Amino acid sequence: MTARCITHSSSGIHEIMNVTIRGRTQHYRTVSFDAEKNCVHLIEQRLLPHEFKIVAAKNFRETARAIADMVVRGAGAIGATAAYGLAQGARAFRGNDPKRFAAHLEIVRRTLAGARPTAVDPVNAMRQVLAEMARGETVAEKQALALAAAEEFADKNVRHCEAIGRHGAKLIRHGMKILTHCNAGWLAFVDVGTATAPLYAAQGLGKRFHVFCDETRPRSQGATLTAWELAQQKIPHHIIADNAAGHFMQRGEIDLVIVGSDRVLGRTGEVANKIGTYTKAVLAARHQIPFYVAIPLSTIDWRLKRGFGIPIEERHEDEVLGAWGVEQKTKAESGKRKYVRVANPTSGARNPGFDVTPAELITGIITPAGIFKPRELWRHRRDLGY
Amino acid sequence: MTARCITHSSSGIHEIMNVTIRGRTQHYRTVSFDAEKNCVHLIEQRLLPHEFKIVAAKNFRETARAIADMVVRGAGAIGATAAYGLAQGARAFRGNDPKRFAAHLEIVRRTLAGARPTAVDPVNAMRQVLAEMARGETVAEKQALALAAAEEFADKNVRHCEAIGRHGAKLIRHGMKILTHCNAGWLAFVDVGTATAPLYAAQGLGKRFHVFCDETRPRSQGATLTAWELAQQKIPHHIIADNAAGHFMQRGEIDLVIVGSDRVLGRTGEVANKIGTYTKAVLAARHQIPFYVAIPLSTIDWRLKRGFGIPIEERHEDEVLGAWGVEQKTKAESGKRKYVRVANPTSGARNPGFDVTPAELITGIITPAGIFKPRELWRHRRDLGY
Repeated sequence: MTARCITHSSSGIHEIMNVTIRGRTQHYRTVSFDAEKNCVHLIEQRLLPHEFKIVAAKNFRETARAIADMVVRGAGAIGATAAYGLAQGARAFRGNDPKRFAAHLEIVRRTLAGARPTAVDPVNAMRQVLAEMARGETVAEKQALALAAAEEFADKNVRHCEAIGRHGAKLIRHGMKILTHCNAGWLAFVDVGTATAPLYAAQGLGKRFHVFCDETRPRSQGATLTAWELAQQKIPHHIIADNAAGHFMQRGEIDLVIVGSDRVLGRTGEVANKIGTYTKAVLAARHQIPFYVAIPLSTIDWRLKRGFGIPIEERHEDEVLGAWGVEQKTKAESGKRKYVRVANPTSGARNPGFDVTPAELITGIITPAGIFKPRELWRHRRDLGY
Repeated sequence: MTARCITHSSSGIHEIMNVTIRGRTQHYRTVSFDAEKNCVHLIEQRLLPHEFKIVAAKNFRETARAIADMVVRGAGAIGATAAYGLAQGARAFRGNDPKRFAAHLEIVRRTLAGARPTAVDPVNAMRQVLAEMARGETVAEKQALALAAAEEFADKNVRHCEAIGRHGAKLIRHGMKILTHCNAGWLAFVDVGTATAPLYAAQGLGKRFHVFCDETRPRSQGATLTAWELAQQKIPHHIIADNAAGHFMQRGEIDLVIVGSDRVLGRTGEVANKIGTYTKAVLAARHQIPFYVAIPLSTIDWRLKRGFGIPIEERHEDEVLGAWGVEQKTKAESGKRKYVRVANPTSGARNPGFDVTPAELITGIITPAGIFKPRELWRHRRDLGY
């Protein structure tokens, strides 16, 4: 694995997720901030798992571009990136004029919000930073508050993931075989992750278990990102084809399923997540295998009344028709990722990016506030931040 | 598409499946025999869909290697290949000594049977050829009978596939959306195929319908072979990720599922087929979508008493950890297939090649003798060739 431009995590208070490069283990957050240089530091996720690199976004426009170009992805991670980006933009302002500062800040906010227009996390994250900034009077005060609020947003994201881990770890017994789908790991958040949080917490408690990572075609986030995370944390695991989970369940080789989610409906308990999640839930229900969904509170949508109303993004067919990988001679070797066309050249594809799993197939929703039955979210909405 | 070393189908009696190369349409069988040169001709399926090429196996060891290396794959195709391979090996024997001939023949048989040890079709096919050969007295007579029996085996394979098509076409209504998994098409047989036979027959009757081809990771036979076949036959279709079928079923976009099988247990109705078949059957049952399995009679295993006894081949992890494809600029362009590693370089994979679907999830078994409920196969065993 090649490492370039490596920096330390800025705050370093939650030293959980480690990366080993050339035998040296170091802690990294997915997103962090260098206050001295006013830079947002991001793990360049498009190079993983074949190359590990930290990139520095030197101004708010570069930060917005990193969000737009998916250098950073995952709800929690892009929320924290936008929070830092707003602080970065605010701190770059020179002068004392509050009106000009406000106008500048609005440009920063719009630029960052426009980077992933469908995502709700950047908008919510920046709202929290702006609310904190309102407590300041001078431009300098507001600038200082912006950074503190962004750091607090990122730290809170980590604390919430840790809380998910504490609750979820209770579900994991020694010797269990656990299936996960896609990547809701620390790479999708600031640290720890959601679907992975119970795994890391259980490991911390000395429990031993084995993880099956669904490959998660077409973008293969399970085979690339989740497997990479688990390898870094030295959690025993195997990647499996998305087709194989049913077989392993039938043979009694899967005891528990934990996935993340892009949106959980607070009113119905329906879960929107990466395409294939519904299939795994149907299989788990048939085999009476507990199926859990781990989420931060920001993932709960309290307004939408039915899952059928969730817009399902249909992505480009090339994702299904081919794959991204590296040509290499040995496992240890690195290389540049390239796209190969796998499918018949004269065929097209359909490519829904997400699916919706009904509440009846979900054993529980693991949140920072505890584990809830999906249909009980609404009853507990006050505890869940609504 | 590049064509080299192209030969004609040897018998040419069932000119159904056509391939268009550079605007010229011609009929091909997946497996055929050149009696003059004592060669087995095979479509080199590992190059498809990016290149179309016929290869000649010049002796029984090359034929066995073609089976082992998956130049040819699919129950019917490897059955016919083994039948031809046995005739090829028998015909290569020089001399008149019946004892030495028998010993030679046993080496040929074992070599061909050992090429794919889980598969039952080569064994059954060779048994039929050997039974015919027993009618001869001299070595020369046995050699002639071997070739005639192998040709008859291949022709019967085509006739049976056509009968499957006639029965199965009745299930297809105008406007239907049909899901298929893996490739049980003409490339998996001598011609016509099994899971595809109803599609081709329905098309012949003027019915219009749409096919979803499961990609079928890890080897992607749906995205490569089935999609290529359907494109050649001009049947409208889309490739989908294996993860997506559940979503389309949930949205009412799939009306019928037809798959093939590697082994159907005559006593229980259980179906062994490509990994992921079980998952699709579970999903279809949940959505009350008819799930059919199309097979020739040779696929029925009358001895085994339970599906759990079917050996499940665990294949090399590299299949799951990467993909085979071509780098190309345009859809029409061809290129050499190369392997790229998709997954995290330090992770391993589990790779079961098949799974077993219980009878309760299967609406019907489409055979050349008609359509049967899976649990009724045993009762009808006399009509089904037991």
